[in-house]
Amino acid sequence: MNFKGASILSVDQFERADLQQIFDVATEMEVYANHQKLTRVLEGAVLGNLFFEPSTRSRVSFGAAFNRLGGEVRDTTGFTFSSMAKGESIHDTSRVISGYVDCLVVRHPEEGAVQQFADATNIPVINGGDGPGEHPTQALLDLYTVAKEHGKNLDEIDGLSIAMIGDLKHGRTVHSLTKLLALFDNISFTFVAPDELRMPDGILERARSRDHNITETEDMIEGIKDVDVIYMTRIQEERFSAPEEFAKYRGKYSLNRATYEQHCRENTAIMHPLPRDSRPGANELDNDLNGHPKLAIFRQTDNGIPIRMALFAMVMDVADKVHDTARDAIWYRPESIDTN
Amino acid sequence: MNFKGASILSVDQFERADLQQIFDVATEMEVYANHQKLTRVLEGAVLGNLFFEPSTRSRVSFGAAFNRLGGEVRDTTGFTFSSMAKGESIHDTSRVISGYVDCLVVRHPEEGAVQQFADATNIPVINGGDGPGEHPTQALLDLYTVAKEHGKNLDEIDGLSIAMIGDLKHGRTVHSLTKLLALFDNISFTFVAPDELRMPDGILERARSRDHNITETEDMIEGIKDVDVIYMTRIQEERFSAPEEFAKYRGKYSLNRATYEQHCRENTAIMHPLPRDSRPGANELDNDLNGHPKLAIFRQTDNGIPIRMALFAMVMDVADKVHDTARDAIWYRPESIDTN
Amino acid sequence: MNFKGASILSVDQFERADLQQIFDVATEMEVYANHQKLTRVLEGAVLGNLFFEPSTRSRVSFGAAFNRLGGEVRDTTGFTFSSMAKGESIHDTSRVISGYVDCLVVRHPEEGAVQQFADATNIPVINGGDGPGEHPTQALLDLYTVAKEHGKNLDEIDGLSIAMIGDLKHGRTVHSLTKLLALFDNISFTFVAPDELRMPDGILERARSRDHNITETEDMIEGIKDVDVIYMTRIQEERFSAPEEFAKYRGKYSLNRATYEQHCRENTAIMHPLPRDSRPGANELDNDLNGHPKLAIFRQTDNGIPIRMALFAMVMDVADKVHDTARDAIWYRPESIDTN
Repeated sequence: MNFKGASILSVDQFERADLQQIFDVATEMEVYANHQKLTRVLEGAVLGNLFFEPSTRSRVSFGAAFNRLGGEVRDTTGFTFSSMAKGESIHDTSRVISGYVDCLVVRHPEEGAVQQFADATNIPVINGGDGPGEHPTQALLDLYTVAKEHGKNLDEIDGLSIAMIGDLKHGRTVHSLTKLLALFDNISFTFVAPDELRMPDGILERARSRDHNITETEDMIEGIKDVDVIYMTRIQEERFSAPEEFAKYRGKYSLNRATYEQHCRENTAIMHPLPRDSRPGANELDNDLNGHPKLAIFRQTDNGIPIRMALFAMVMDVADKVHDTARDAIWYRPESIDTN
Repeated sequence: MNFKGASILSVDQFERADLQQIFDVATEMEVYANHQKLTRVLEGAVLGNLFFEPSTRSRVSFGAAFNRLGGEVRDTTGFTFSSMAKGESIHDTSRVISGYVDCLVVRHPEEGAVQQFADATNIPVINGGDGPGEHPTQALLDLYTVAKEHGKNLDEIDGLSIAMIGDLKHGRTVHSLTKLLALFDNISFTFVAPDELRMPDGILERARSRDHNITETEDMIEGIKDVDVIYMTRIQEERFSAPEEFAKYRGKYSLNRATYEQHCRENTAIMHPLPRDSRPGANELDNDLNGHPKLAIFRQTDNGIPIRMALFAMVMDVADKVHDTARDAIWYRPESIDTN
Repeated sequence: MNFKGASILSVDQFERADLQQIFDVATEMEVYANHQKLTRVLEGAVLGNLFFEPSTRSRVSFGAAFNRLGGEVRDTTGFTFSSMAKGESIHDTSRVISGYVDCLVVRHPEEGAVQQFADATNIPVINGGDGPGEHPTQALLDLYTVAKEHGKNLDEIDGLSIAMIGDLKHGRTVHSLTKLLALFDNISFTFVAPDELRMPDGILERARSRDHNITETEDMIEGIKDVDVIYMTRIQEERFSAPEEFAKYRGKYSLNRATYEQHCRENTAIMHPLPRDSRPGANELDNDLNGHPKLAIFRQTDNGIPIRMALFAMVMDVADKVHDTARDAIWYRPESIDTN
């Protein structure tokens, strides 16, 4: 696809070559994302960072990524557009704000709303999540993490094996990541979920293309045995038809250090879109995995910065000019952010 | 007036020469507002953008305008000053924040509150709207739009004809625009409103000065027939004494493409302070006018940027230094923001 | 202490030499804080300014201080981390945001929460107030003001006399300032408070070290007679066991111009952590002191900028590089911010 001036609305926009292009730019962004160097390529540009529902981490990630390119950010949070409460259309809101800024990020609780924002303007619009719809930058950073964790280029991930675990029916992230991985060859997907929360048929259909191998199971131990990547997601009680149904699975999809060490290959990377529930009894990743070298969840969120920087640079057509204003960052940065 | 260090609180501050001066600077700001060039003249300066009531578009517009001059923006939204809830005076709040920033924009639900902010500090304070009071930057961008839509300099708008339509009693924008136009010569005002919502006498008094022609009518078709500019505003049901009274006017002040084409001169510009109610049955501008070349409503909001940039540059006394740091913007921008 | 990369969590971290070092840097920051010069030393750096409870003035002060060093600020306000509502730990929140920014300021209603943020990351974390716990930057700016108001270097404040007045039991600021002053020699502390709201024993213990003189009294007039500094704080009715108890002290700790002029030495500086209650009958500083040359309360809040700039510069290890990018600020600034 031609990224110049484009809006990024759905993972369905991308072909394999597009992903390679994004990841090549993201790789070049790493020195800026790591605070080793700084660039001023977007100095003078302004981002409209419009969050119609709370998602503080995504809002800060998009904003910081734009700042790292030298640009300024104007944030909005919540339905503070009193104008929309008074009957203003998305068309009008989008067009008005477009006159103030150079690029929009929009997060909205309703599926399709971000598309409407994009339809009303010619400036680039990036989907920061539209309810049950899409969150394409999350999918891109997930795929980028899958590749990086195994030290592979994107063209080497053919043949990868991945276990996706949890609520695969409602999980926006696992749907999008499956769609992206399906663009490669010979991927082994293991979908681990309660029967009520199986991966939807539409997504399975995608995954069945190109010689991919698909296994569906309710047994997590079986699923994590021999994979390159575990992608864990949250299971929420309210997603089940009945409490008894939920009770059947309590604790079954919780990964802790002992389980990992007993059943997984040594190089299996553990991913999670975060946030994870860290309260006792949560059906997710145990805190005792913190500090484990294969726990990739924070490297995964860190990857949001180079991925979002890359997308901004590409849609604003400055990817080849980023280094022109580069210089060393002179402030202190720790060897590693992690304390354990 | 002397703009250096001045606060911008009311349209009553301006004489005709002041308007000319503001518009001259605004015209110079257009290349920055259009993202063709960038300037860093206010690099290092900080704006306190204090919004005590929600007005996201105004907040973003002021903030983006300050950013376009190279400055930084610290936003506050809502009555989040817990200090004020605990009995802190406006005097103290204003003086404290003045120690942190170089310029203040204040929006407040109470008339006169912004004046109190200005009374407590020597840094420039710009009124971003004080309830039923003033919103001077809106009036300036409206007047700027009136002139630009007809390709006229400000000194050529003597003799202009304008129809203001809707709730002229409570409409802050039509009051201010009338005051500003009254500074010129030989303007033809047609005020179209329900009897209960007529332009107040105080404003009519102003409009009666300097050979202006005034017509009042309830008939929109009559009013829009032969004017340079239509300025439409919203009529809200709750403004009427009784529902039956409102019912009498339902649909009477709604302008759509057919009405426009049947009754208006070819060059009549259509303005609206926005937001407009785009829900079915709203008494306002119909969506079928979107894309019409004379629909000026989005150019009007766009004009908020050069106008606000001009005011910032003038009160901070850098208007003549803006170009010193100018360079071409290198990022992508579409030929036109508009999609239709 | 070694400031490079350090977190600033408590006044207990500081020894006398550390204070001297902070104040030396803060003094160098004054030209930037006063808008005379600008520096870009932190250009490209991003601050995460996380406010989990409202404190608009502190949030703006930290943000503006970071901006004055050339850095960018990403704000969050309230418990908008929907992730934390869903069971995310402080550890995870801190670690995730640390991947986006270079430095964190955290304000949180729970004592110890900011320490938990610091425990989860290696980037510097500055405590912006943690409930009843600490607010170390406030204590530093208070001490800086004490010294500056008497034109003294820090090493000359041995022998200073100060009266602290009001609710000394719950007042976080008076506890911290007492701890810092106790690091010097021969300070005369006069603690003026209702019996129920006396300074806690633990703090008195600190103040009893190093030949300091301590007087406790309920009589404000007695307390303010012969001191270098009056530090006034708010007394809230709900802090008393019974309304009758509160009634006994009504008006007894209110300082107005007449009382000051009748009882105080000419050079006694009046401080207050602000906000003050300016409603009639408030037990605090009267508005008739506004404009009095010894009323230091706004110079005190102004001092928050150089102090916070100094801390940012020190923990990010750029204190010696601030002047490298310095140039004159070219925008207008008033001779004095104060109007009276």
